[in-house]
Amino acid sequence: MLEELKKAVYEANMLLPKYGLVTFTWGNVSQIDRESGIFAIKPSGVDYDKLTPEDMVLMDLNGNKVEGRYNPSSDTPTHLELYRAFQNIGGIVHTHSSWATSWAQAGRGIPCYGTTHADYMYGEIPCLRCLTKEEIEEAYEKNTGLLITDYFKDKDYEAMPAVLCKNHGPFTWGKDGHEAVHNAVVLEEVAKMAARCESINPDVKPAPQELLDKHYYRKHGKDAYYGQR
Amino acid sequence: MLEELKKAVYEANMLLPKYGLVTFTWGNVSQIDRESGIFAIKPSGVDYDKLTPEDMVLMDLNGNKVEGRYNPSSDTPTHLELYRAFQNIGGIVHTHSSWATSWAQAGRGIPCYGTTHADYMYGEIPCLRCLTKEEIEEAYEKNTGLLITDYFKDKDYEAMPAVLCKNHGPFTWGKDGHEAVHNAVVLEEVAKMAARCESINPDVKPAPQELLDKHYYRKHGKDAYYGQR
Amino acid sequence: MLEELKKAVYEANMLLPKYGLVTFTWGNVSQIDRESGIFAIKPSGVDYDKLTPEDMVLMDLNGNKVEGRYNPSSDTPTHLELYRAFQNIGGIVHTHSSWATSWAQAGRGIPCYGTTHADYMYGEIPCLRCLTKEEIEEAYEKNTGLLITDYFKDKDYEAMPAVLCKNHGPFTWGKDGHEAVHNAVVLEEVAKMAARCESINPDVKPAPQELLDKHYYRKHGKDAYYGQR
Amino acid sequence: MLEELKKAVYEANMLLPKYGLVTFTWGNVSQIDRESGIFAIKPSGVDYDKLTPEDMVLMDLNGNKVEGRYNPSSDTPTHLELYRAFQNIGGIVHTHSSWATSWAQAGRGIPCYGTTHADYMYGEIPCLRCLTKEEIEEAYEKNTGLLITDYFKDKDYEAMPAVLCKNHGPFTWGKDGHEAVHNAVVLEEVAKMAARCESINPDVKPAPQELLDKHYYRKHGKDAYYGQR
Repeated sequence: MLEELKKAVYEANMLLPKYGLVTFTWGNVSQIDRESGIFAIKPSGVDYDKLTPEDMVLMDLNGNKVEGRYNPSSDTPTHLELYRAFQNIGGIVHTHSSWATSWAQAGRGIPCYGTTHADYMYGEIPCLRCLTKEEIEEAYEKNTGLLITDYFKDKDYEAMPAVLCKNHGPFTWGKDGHEAVHNAVVLEEVAKMAARCESINPDVKPAPQELLDKHYYRKHGKDAYYGQR
Repeated sequence: MLEELKKAVYEANMLLPKYGLVTFTWGNVSQIDRESGIFAIKPSGVDYDKLTPEDMVLMDLNGNKVEGRYNPSSDTPTHLELYRAFQNIGGIVHTHSSWATSWAQAGRGIPCYGTTHADYMYGEIPCLRCLTKEEIEEAYEKNTGLLITDYFKDKDYEAMPAVLCKNHGPFTWGKDGHEAVHNAVVLEEVAKMAARCESINPDVKPAPQELLDKHYYRKHGKDAYYGQR
Repeated sequence: MLEELKKAVYEANMLLPKYGLVTFTWGNVSQIDRESGIFAIKPSGVDYDKLTPEDMVLMDLNGNKVEGRYNPSSDTPTHLELYRAFQNIGGIVHTHSSWATSWAQAGRGIPCYGTTHADYMYGEIPCLRCLTKEEIEEAYEKNTGLLITDYFKDKDYEAMPAVLCKNHGPFTWGKDGHEAVHNAVVLEEVAKMAARCESINPDVKPAPQELLDKHYYRKHGKDAYYGQR
Repeated sequence: MLEELKKAVYEANMLLPKYGLVTFTWGNVSQIDRESGIFAIKPSGVDYDKLTPEDMVLMDLNGNKVEGRYNPSSDTPTHLELYRAFQNIGGIVHTHSSWATSWAQAGRGIPCYGTTHADYMYGEIPCLRCLTKEEIEEAYEKNTGLLITDYFKDKDYEAMPAVLCKNHGPFTWGKDGHEAVHNAVVLEEVAKMAARCESINPDVKPAPQELLDKHYYRKHGKDAYYGQR
């Protein structure tokens, strides 16, 4: 069932090694079919060069496996919470991509230093706190998801399709798995340039709000004029 | 019409991913036919691996589209101002290449620390100010072009074929699109080495003027002796 | 004899250039057959692109060459001491991979800043002291091995399958040569992210113990649930 | 004439792009036939992907072109001075490889922080001063050579086959062009790791002399035991 979904999720997963975002099996992409409420996700710990579309695992939003011979990604409960809370997203990515993870390990959000960042993400990319000992021991992956959705409960998750989890790494999302991977690539590039930028000028300030507005709305919303419309 | 121009601009655009200067569609090359006053430019937001010579958009210097089924790059008004003011150039490149963009985000010009830099660019590569709120809202891309041409109005734009726009990224130019790409590669390499150089020696000073003169004029002007002449 | 062992060691060695861990001949992998007490190791100073399975050198645990037309790696006496002391390991890797070696040259252990690290290595990756003049002159490679095994005599070498030797570089190990290479890749990635992380936040603190426990035991031990079990 | 020499120099030159040491035409390799006193060198400013063995230029040690349709590298007078003064070398490389050039631009020699460095170069890799205005204007490339040979007049150029020229870049040498390229690769790797090492530990000290002795003499001289002898 849902062969197209599995194929799309397989292809989105294969973009992670293509874009240099994963080492070994350190990443996963999922995508949801909102009609049926079923999402497909990479199986846990399976090498990218052995992966096939049939290996994708189908899950429902109650966390039950619907189809698949493998265990789903161990991060599946995090994806599930995001799909539940962010009704307008269709795909999610988690990686340990090295620049974004370095910021996550450093415990800092990524300030918006320029238009590359502003073209995709509206403002500072947040870095959320570590889970408490209790949260970790009770339900680590699920509570990671709840921490993220709680942070965004009064914020626009579509204007900020990325988050860093302290001491861990990034999650990104989008309208489907492919766009979520796209945002993961942007995040990694933005994270790299922000680190270098601070090294070149330790006193650097974030870009002015009007420039961010210009670039973000050049690409998003009703007055967008970038690309072919 | 102007099939050769479109082919040349297509090929110059394809050098950007080859040299690692672009992620996704974050860059564009144009080239002008001075006789007809028409320039060809990459369409906006089209993937490099789907691009063909026929996709190039032809524009005149009044900003009218002369030929092409796509919208031109959103940066077209910037290219246009540069072609108007810099009569001796034939090609222009804009990228978000990561080292040059990191300097632009840092808001610093790139000091000339050595002969690699001096071989191509005569002195510090300038970083221009951000546009004002009014300039951004009125005509962002056009005013970016005017800021650049205003800066160079009493300077030699042929001896400095590169500029950084604060919080944004670099523009480079040359006698055609190919040379403008060449200069974009040089800029990225020079930006990388300048950042590392400052990290290795925070008290580093720019290279002495006589060394810069020697290297620049070894390659440029009537007494040049580098290469096959 | 031991054709499968030689083939496995050859293949593990060929992973080093594949993963970008070696320049020229600066690395070696060995693997032991515990039943016979014989291990296979890369020959000394032979180029990776000329290597064949037949070139692997067979050694016993007394340091005698059992088979092979080449001299074994000059680091063989270090491997030998590790096989003697660490009864549960089956493979060893030595490289000069650039990030791990930079930490070794800096004389610092690598703090555990996040879950990428904790997934594989339980705590700070130690950096051991330089050998003394006497130790170097007497039996450099053997004493390097003894320094490592002495450090681990009251520690769990399976939970920390990597070590840095000051001013030199890393050794890693695992249940076979392939896993030891896997750990060498992890070490390099972790070393890179830790350096960048400290540059992004000079005041960064190691990740909390409960997060490390969670990630390490998610992958190791009787309650592990990562992957397909 | 000297077809084998031209082929060897061609092949050594082609290793520069293979090892990532050159951008565009920013590097050159030469090799000398000591019997005839003739050396072959890359032509000036010719692209690597258009180069053929027949393009190599033959020069004598008086600076006369003996054969070749192209101009020799503009750095030829530097090579010539090195061949004259360093009787035991057979090949020379000049590049603008990015890490070594960053140290040269920073005006600092590269301290010996570990065994990777010590395996090839005995001590700190020197960074020589800039030429004076007079030296530059009189005979830039020749005086660059004389500065290098003057520095080494009371030192062992075989134990230190690399030098940095301030604000410019590195030269390396060896028994032939291939070995000189090998040393250029080592230099770049060592330069990279030294910069990262200082960033990881700003108070790092050079490796102890006895470790350097051990590694250097493990590979060089009558008691060497590395590799197949």
